[in-house]
Amino acid sequence: MSVVAAKGYLASGVWSAIKGSGKPDLSLIVSERTASAAGVFTRNRFRAAPVEESIRRLAESGGRARSIVATSGNSNSLTGAAGVRDSLAVSRETARLLGIPPRHVLIASTGTMGRRLPVDRVKRGLVKAVKALGATPAHGLAAARGIMTTDTCPKQATASFTSGNVVCRIGGCAKGVGMVSPSMATVLVFLTTDAEIPVESLRKSLREAVAGTFNRITVDGQMSTNDTAFLLANGAAGGRPLSGSGLAGFQAALDSVCRELARELVRDGEGASRTFRVTVTRARTAAEADRAARAIADSALVKTMFYGRQPNWGRIAQALGACGAVFDQGRVVVRVGGLVAIRGGMSVEPKFAMLTRLADPEVQVSIDLAAGCGSAEILTCDLTEKYVKINAGYLS
Amino acid sequence: MSVVAAKGYLASGVWSAIKGSGKPDLSLIVSERTASAAGVFTRNRFRAAPVEESIRRLAESGGRARSIVATSGNSNSLTGAAGVRDSLAVSRETARLLGIPPRHVLIASTGTMGRRLPVDRVKRGLVKAVKALGATPAHGLAAARGIMTTDTCPKQATASFTSGNVVCRIGGCAKGVGMVSPSMATVLVFLTTDAEIPVESLRKSLREAVAGTFNRITVDGQMSTNDTAFLLANGAAGGRPLSGSGLAGFQAALDSVCRELARELVRDGEGASRTFRVTVTRARTAAEADRAARAIADSALVKTMFYGRQPNWGRIAQALGACGAVFDQGRVVVRVGGLVAIRGGMSVEPKFAMLTRLADPEVQVSIDLAAGCGSAEILTCDLTEKYVKINAGYLS
Repeated sequence: MSVVAAKGYLASGVWSAIKGSGKPDLSLIVSERTASAAGVFTRNRFRAAPVEESIRRLAESGGRARSIVATSGNSNSLTGAAGVRDSLAVSRETARLLGIPPRHVLIASTGTMGRRLPVDRVKRGLVKAVKALGATPAHGLAAARGIMTTDTCPKQATASFTSGNVVCRIGGCAKGVGMVSPSMATVLVFLTTDAEIPVESLRKSLREAVAGTFNRITVDGQMSTNDTAFLLANGAAGGRPLSGSGLAGFQAALDSVCRELARELVRDGEGASRTFRVTVTRARTAAEADRAARAIADSALVKTMFYGRQPNWGRIAQALGACGAVFDQGRVVVRVGGLVAIRGGMSVEPKFAMLTRLADPEVQVSIDLAAGCGSAEILTCDLTEKYVKINAGYLS
Repeated sequence: MSVVAAKGYLASGVWSAIKGSGKPDLSLIVSERTASAAGVFTRNRFRAAPVEESIRRLAESGGRARSIVATSGNSNSLTGAAGVRDSLAVSRETARLLGIPPRHVLIASTGTMGRRLPVDRVKRGLVKAVKALGATPAHGLAAARGIMTTDTCPKQATASFTSGNVVCRIGGCAKGVGMVSPSMATVLVFLTTDAEIPVESLRKSLREAVAGTFNRITVDGQMSTNDTAFLLANGAAGGRPLSGSGLAGFQAALDSVCRELARELVRDGEGASRTFRVTVTRARTAAEADRAARAIADSALVKTMFYGRQPNWGRIAQALGACGAVFDQGRVVVRVGGLVAIRGGMSVEPKFAMLTRLADPEVQVSIDLAAGCGSAEILTCDLTEKYVKINAGYLS
């Protein structure tokens, strides 16, 4: 169930006094041997210091790493050159304590923006984190907890696959749950596997998995400056480097881990009471399908409609009609929970069966645009008073 | 202060039992003589029946009208061919009662979507509305009230200008205050003037005024299927048809009326506690400036930040960095209330003076992208628990 599910990984999560609450705020993941490493990062033009730092490290090491160090409670973003020096100091100290080269340490941060990272406290925390390292599920859980911000629960997932006669594993953890948004990398996601995978293949696999999972979710349509996904492959399971069908098996397992983590992120979306999945088919193009699905998923009116369990289908129509996708309103069919809600340009009077579907924990919204063959799917959550409360008061 | 401020107009607002609350839900505006008429409508692909009907009327009459009839509480959208017949029945009955040709009646509706308009009740209401017509400020106010939905107050504005030695007036009323959104026409806005204006000039003036005012506001980034702005010019003030500097004076007055109404709409945005104005300058293009301003204005995180009066400038950065506008993060300067909030890729530690600016009823957010010469401005409001409450429960 955790980031240490695969062989040859250690993890820990401790409190280093970044958070005033005494909750874990420093996570460390270490591979016992040097691993192939790949990263996917935010596409936000304001990129946080740890993102800059990790991109440089991956380039420097040619995609090799031993450790991931992550802080929560302070995202070290909008901190300029001083922030970059702070990230560097933390990754150097991690390397020194672990006795590995600094270029093999990847770094990520999440939390409040625009404040200097308390480097001295983090350094003291690192000593504790190194001492606390271990490979039990409890250690994996501690690392998953150490990256939480407004998350109400840790997010972990694992999967296994076979390559030849060797069983390999993938484990991962992730955090959300605000500033979770469309068309980019993701939040913080750390994935480990004990398969041996050449770095080029690893990069491709991670990009593919992220595109189909983390890039298909949204909580509030807002893109973090710190989104980071790391994937380490240390080969500790034994067996030959993956290729061909071995790689395909790995990709399927990686996709399933990412899908599970992505779903967990949305379920725990800030203030969310339920999730809904928007599927758009027969759009003129795939890009228009994506646009339509995101327009509905990010609509404050559709989100509050699902929160209030109201059959107010007009809100789906207005979001669809305004998104820029081209279609004929008379040919569109909208289904909610599998039952027709809009057809022939008309709202269908909701029956009892539909009202019960609105109470499902994950409501299905399917839209047939009858305009081409593009399709897209987005998973999202509703908008509640709690989201507003969290974000009107959040500045730790 | 109202839609009857200009000479030769009568108005009324009555209850026709569309709304269960007993509040006014039927407004009538009548020009004593046939007026030049122009309309601007929603760009939503799902277009409500009254919008279709009014577009056809304006084409049929060549831009001439005597009356505007509007219902609130039911928007007659997503109602298919039956909905078009219902709008037609209402405008025909209005024409019959007023003794004017049906092609001279414009129609607009706002309220719950996807339900048939109770035509019989509206027809009975029309008899009352015609009897109640008058030209006092109280009559104008009644018409402004008759189009309200979640609005907490009526919105009215007037201005005057001179053409030659003739003083002309413009009056208007409008309603919001949810599904108020970017890049299209507006909500419901009815404008009247007693100037004599050729229909071609009138259309151009209305388009220009709407583009600079109603199209520069957003409450929730959602586009109604019923957005409609009408402008009537009946020439009752006397004097010659406007041209040249007369038209320029008219445009300035019209812009000021629309600006005032647009600002009123945002101030009364669903659940809003304060407004903020986003100005983007030196973007690479005007389109990118517009995109950046809207990204910030529609960001749930920026909106809740202003609601909570928090100096959490990172949220402005993340919205800006994700919007697709091209800039160098190190050169961007963000000011809040005139004081620097972000410069050189760094968040500036907020001083006391800035915190007091956050309590202003209209907060100024200025962004210098240092990337070109495009600029744009958007007026918007904050996001509060009340918006969620209104929209999780709104289905009258």
